[in-house]
Amino acid sequence: MIYEHWTKSVHHDGSPYYVVGSPLHPGSKVTLRLRTGIQTPVERVFLRTTPDGEQCMQVMSQINVDRVSRWWEIALELRMASTNYRFFLEAADGGYWFSGSGITRHSPTDATDFKILAQYHAPAWVHDSVFYQIFPDRFYDGDPSNNVRTGEYLYYGQPVVARAWGERPSPHSASGGYEFFGGDLQGITQKLDYLEDLGVSALYLTPIFTAPSNHKYDIADYKQVDPHVGGNVGLIELRESLSRRNMRLLLDIVPNHSGSGNSWFLDAQSNPSAPTAEFYTFHQYPEKYEAWMGLDNLPKLNYRSERLREYMYSGKDSVMRSWLKPPFCIDGWRIDAVNMLARQGEIQLNDEVICGMRRAVKAENPDAYLIGEHTYDGTAYLQGDKLDATMNYGGFMSPVIQWLTNHDVVQVWQGERPNTQSIPAEVMVAQWQTFLAAIPWQIAIQQFNLLGSHDTRRILTLVGGDVARVRVAATLLFTYPGVPCIYYGDEIGMLGAADPDNRRCMLWDQDAWNGELHSYFKTLIHLRRSSLALCQGGFQLVYAHENTVAFIREASQERMLVIARRASDGLVALPVQHADLPDGTHLYEMLTGMEEVISDGKLSLASLPTVGGQIWRVVFA
Amino acid sequence: MIYEHWTKSVHHDGSPYYVVGSPLHPGSKVTLRLRTGIQTPVERVFLRTTPDGEQCMQVMSQINVDRVSRWWEIALELRMASTNYRFFLEAADGGYWFSGSGITRHSPTDATDFKILAQYHAPAWVHDSVFYQIFPDRFYDGDPSNNVRTGEYLYYGQPVVARAWGERPSPHSASGGYEFFGGDLQGITQKLDYLEDLGVSALYLTPIFTAPSNHKYDIADYKQVDPHVGGNVGLIELRESLSRRNMRLLLDIVPNHSGSGNSWFLDAQSNPSAPTAEFYTFHQYPEKYEAWMGLDNLPKLNYRSERLREYMYSGKDSVMRSWLKPPFCIDGWRIDAVNMLARQGEIQLNDEVICGMRRAVKAENPDAYLIGEHTYDGTAYLQGDKLDATMNYGGFMSPVIQWLTNHDVVQVWQGERPNTQSIPAEVMVAQWQTFLAAIPWQIAIQQFNLLGSHDTRRILTLVGGDVARVRVAATLLFTYPGVPCIYYGDEIGMLGAADPDNRRCMLWDQDAWNGELHSYFKTLIHLRRSSLALCQGGFQLVYAHENTVAFIREASQERMLVIARRASDGLVALPVQHADLPDGTHLYEMLTGMEEVISDGKLSLASLPTVGGQIWRVVFA
Repeated sequence: MIYEHWTKSVHHDGSPYYVVGSPLHPGSKVTLRLRTGIQTPVERVFLRTTPDGEQCMQVMSQINVDRVSRWWEIALELRMASTNYRFFLEAADGGYWFSGSGITRHSPTDATDFKILAQYHAPAWVHDSVFYQIFPDRFYDGDPSNNVRTGEYLYYGQPVVARAWGERPSPHSASGGYEFFGGDLQGITQKLDYLEDLGVSALYLTPIFTAPSNHKYDIADYKQVDPHVGGNVGLIELRESLSRRNMRLLLDIVPNHSGSGNSWFLDAQSNPSAPTAEFYTFHQYPEKYEAWMGLDNLPKLNYRSERLREYMYSGKDSVMRSWLKPPFCIDGWRIDAVNMLARQGEIQLNDEVICGMRRAVKAENPDAYLIGEHTYDGTAYLQGDKLDATMNYGGFMSPVIQWLTNHDVVQVWQGERPNTQSIPAEVMVAQWQTFLAAIPWQIAIQQFNLLGSHDTRRILTLVGGDVARVRVAATLLFTYPGVPCIYYGDEIGMLGAADPDNRRCMLWDQDAWNGELHSYFKTLIHLRRSSLALCQGGFQLVYAHENTVAFIREASQERMLVIARRASDGLVALPVQHADLPDGTHLYEMLTGMEEVISDGKLSLASLPTVGGQIWRVVFA
Repeated sequence: MIYEHWTKSVHHDGSPYYVVGSPLHPGSKVTLRLRTGIQTPVERVFLRTTPDGEQCMQVMSQINVDRVSRWWEIALELRMASTNYRFFLEAADGGYWFSGSGITRHSPTDATDFKILAQYHAPAWVHDSVFYQIFPDRFYDGDPSNNVRTGEYLYYGQPVVARAWGERPSPHSASGGYEFFGGDLQGITQKLDYLEDLGVSALYLTPIFTAPSNHKYDIADYKQVDPHVGGNVGLIELRESLSRRNMRLLLDIVPNHSGSGNSWFLDAQSNPSAPTAEFYTFHQYPEKYEAWMGLDNLPKLNYRSERLREYMYSGKDSVMRSWLKPPFCIDGWRIDAVNMLARQGEIQLNDEVICGMRRAVKAENPDAYLIGEHTYDGTAYLQGDKLDATMNYGGFMSPVIQWLTNHDVVQVWQGERPNTQSIPAEVMVAQWQTFLAAIPWQIAIQQFNLLGSHDTRRILTLVGGDVARVRVAATLLFTYPGVPCIYYGDEIGMLGAADPDNRRCMLWDQDAWNGELHSYFKTLIHLRRSSLALCQGGFQLVYAHENTVAFIREASQERMLVIARRASDGLVALPVQHADLPDGTHLYEMLTGMEEVISDGKLSLASLPTVGGQIWRVVFA
């Protein structure tokens, strides 16, 4: 169904600009605001809620009319832990529903209602953070004395290999999984000046616990930082250095499976009565057991075991709680493979295990940031009782990459990968909107947005080396709702094909950097961190067609109009009146300092690069 | 987004025609089939599943090409209790997702995936049932000796009133709630010949347990049939008579609140230490307490009480279990106000209470049919672990009525009712599809469809007395996926405005009937019950625009093309080729015996009444 043009002017989101009142708790009252364009045929607006499950329709008051917009508002008491709502617009030609999935004439299901969580404690420090993801073996070798030596131990039968810094990683068919370049926590500590200068405020490290591989997703000891990565001492030093700079630290936990070298598994395999035997699922003892994707090195953990739950998260000294305590005091966890965790055919314990992990982590530190790896639809985890965020592949990165390239970055571990083609901007924003509609706004602005990780080809490689398109992608990363994370080296234009080529050693020779890109990232990071609108502001799509996308981020005293274009498409002026931008509005472009004035309901795009982005700040009179 | 015309030819649903293999249980294998039109640019089709949470993309085989369609198939093992899946179509111009919500270029969330339940036991008798809803006081007075006598008791302070059969019900402002016409279970038993002749196979009775009102939603004693309705003896007689005719019986339970005259509540109010005091929530003992919609006569039941749970459903002799046992042996329950049950602000116990009720009911009788009243979005209750169906106001009745009239039948108890206008067919089917997409097919074909109930104005009144439109509505009721229920008297053209006028006495004088409508209902009921395609067949929308809607129901040896038109719209021939109907196909119209042959990809609508319906059976060569 295509609806009338006026429907584009209808806007509400969960941001403080449209949901006025805090703090949020059961019993608190908020004021909901909704904006419609001046020329809409809307005669009355109703708020539709379902207190205790029964529909309630309340007429909203029209409180203000200016040159381009009408504002409607209504008070709402938050009686339940989670309140869902949508709007009904009574128009001259019939009724229209307005929910997270936009305007429809038929009634949507409650699933896409706007949602307010009244018992959810957000890790507020996350909102203006910028994360930086590091693969520790490849960032910087701060202490050569702890480096893995060639042949030092066997990796599932193969002698490990020491490589010289800067050499290209070998493919997985060779030593890709068991070659080491020497990067360590000491190296990260030593490079904090670089990171602070870049402007990032939080680190996310892939696993650092004792494990035979270089990626360390095959954990042998959950309670010890691998000595080759710097040991527990290295982590304490990093923590202290970070704290002095007011920087945060997110670690990676792998609760779905252990390594087959883990003493839990060795004990289980050698003795069926071992206390940890119940941590695993043996199909034929001791050789055949459930393993991640059938890989024998990664035996699947079995959460029917209460003891495992206690060891991993629920006990006071559990793995997940202990690293949150002093002297490590990490600021949160990224849960690996959260989509598969505690699932085994008929036994589906994922819900209760993730809820249990949340309770345990938040009991230790209510401000901890708990996120999960989910490359598909993770919205079921984002309703307030499980995760604070997922790595936002599905809702952000994947559509952005497919708009800019003809690649789909979504993982296909099982089966065959379809061919993909590039999508137009309207498909990208439909994907954005679909995922945003499924989660509360409080969660949306914490989503862990990214343009790449240790699991994907690097952004510059994906766009075929076109730095301008990286700038387009970065403009979106730092302006889209959610928290941006940079994969180490993307900011200096490192290349990298599929794993492990995407895990090359960080380049420290500045002559090898793309200095222009580096400074573009620095500018964006600074802009982002100093803008309330970009960190927490509302989000309204303004335009999306083929090669161009535009949206507004808005807080009460700051409005930003973001425009991104992947290629020329003949659009010379952007229609903006429906975004509450009347003629005569002055705009200031944050990246270039240019100024423009809106006229005829439009913003001239004369200054927009053919491939590039702009961030216009509305100049309030 | 509007997609290419070819997308209309892509079809799959959860019916046995497209999901081949039974019975369904974890470990069983099914074959999934998908159909695309011959002229689609689709080159490969992938099945997308998420076994244990991880995406799996499998290429489907193209197994057959005929004159108008290509068929694709793939085997799927059901490893989990619930398997969700969708399809990815690799086309010349890019990728398309196909899920329960249709074709999209962006990836939908998993919420609209097709779903197969492998641990769900369906009450199979429901599939070819036709229900008949009776408001017992108003159907037939079989035993005048048990009638309520004027002044016999007080109804919350007002003396009850006996009325003569056939008089118009008084409004609620007068004696609408406490006047009685004498209908009883004996009367129903005596009229089973009528019902059997009509063709219905199951009865749904609004509450019959002891209660002061005529509607009996204010239950005083959950363990006794009200003597004025015929007592337990009357129920046993009815049950036996029904069983002899192979007819079923669904009763109405009110677990959200009791009547204030219930001994549970009287005890609670007179003694704060009474065992049942915890069944209620007193805000200020004993006068102020939580009540349904603030009505003091209906104190809300408090399911924090384990004892209440035991009394109501979990105990062996609980209310819900005992009526399922001999000698009553009812065949299922309709749960009143299921949307509000066990919800009180911060205390939201609805999920666990409904799941508990399901376990209790199914432990007593695995074939019991457990449905709930839900006038809005009840899809959260329809995932296999809660209800077998809801009264399908939101997904069927409401959009049908709003297509045929300018009324919205959805209840607005709280706040103010918006003005509504009629919707075109494309909005009606968008509403249908939205609700179908949210639930497994196994549940969809059990949904309790209706055109009216004791809570809505009667269909003939809603359409302004236009019998032709009632026929259109009835055509949809008996052909749309789900189980039809007739509200007593609608089949003979009774009128009735809002409650209590919609509860007039059944007309037994055949001269007062609309005989033509009665025979139309009889024909539809017979047609429905003798057609596998209409009872359990797949469902593909064929056409929907303004005044006309058409869809296919299909089983392996039977295909039905249903057409309904509310008014003339200039459409003279229906495009049908995309529904796997090649030129030369012979069709036989079941209501009139006419025949037609498809040519130029279309079916002539010359014989379709301006306002009316047709049911064409495909004649297999």
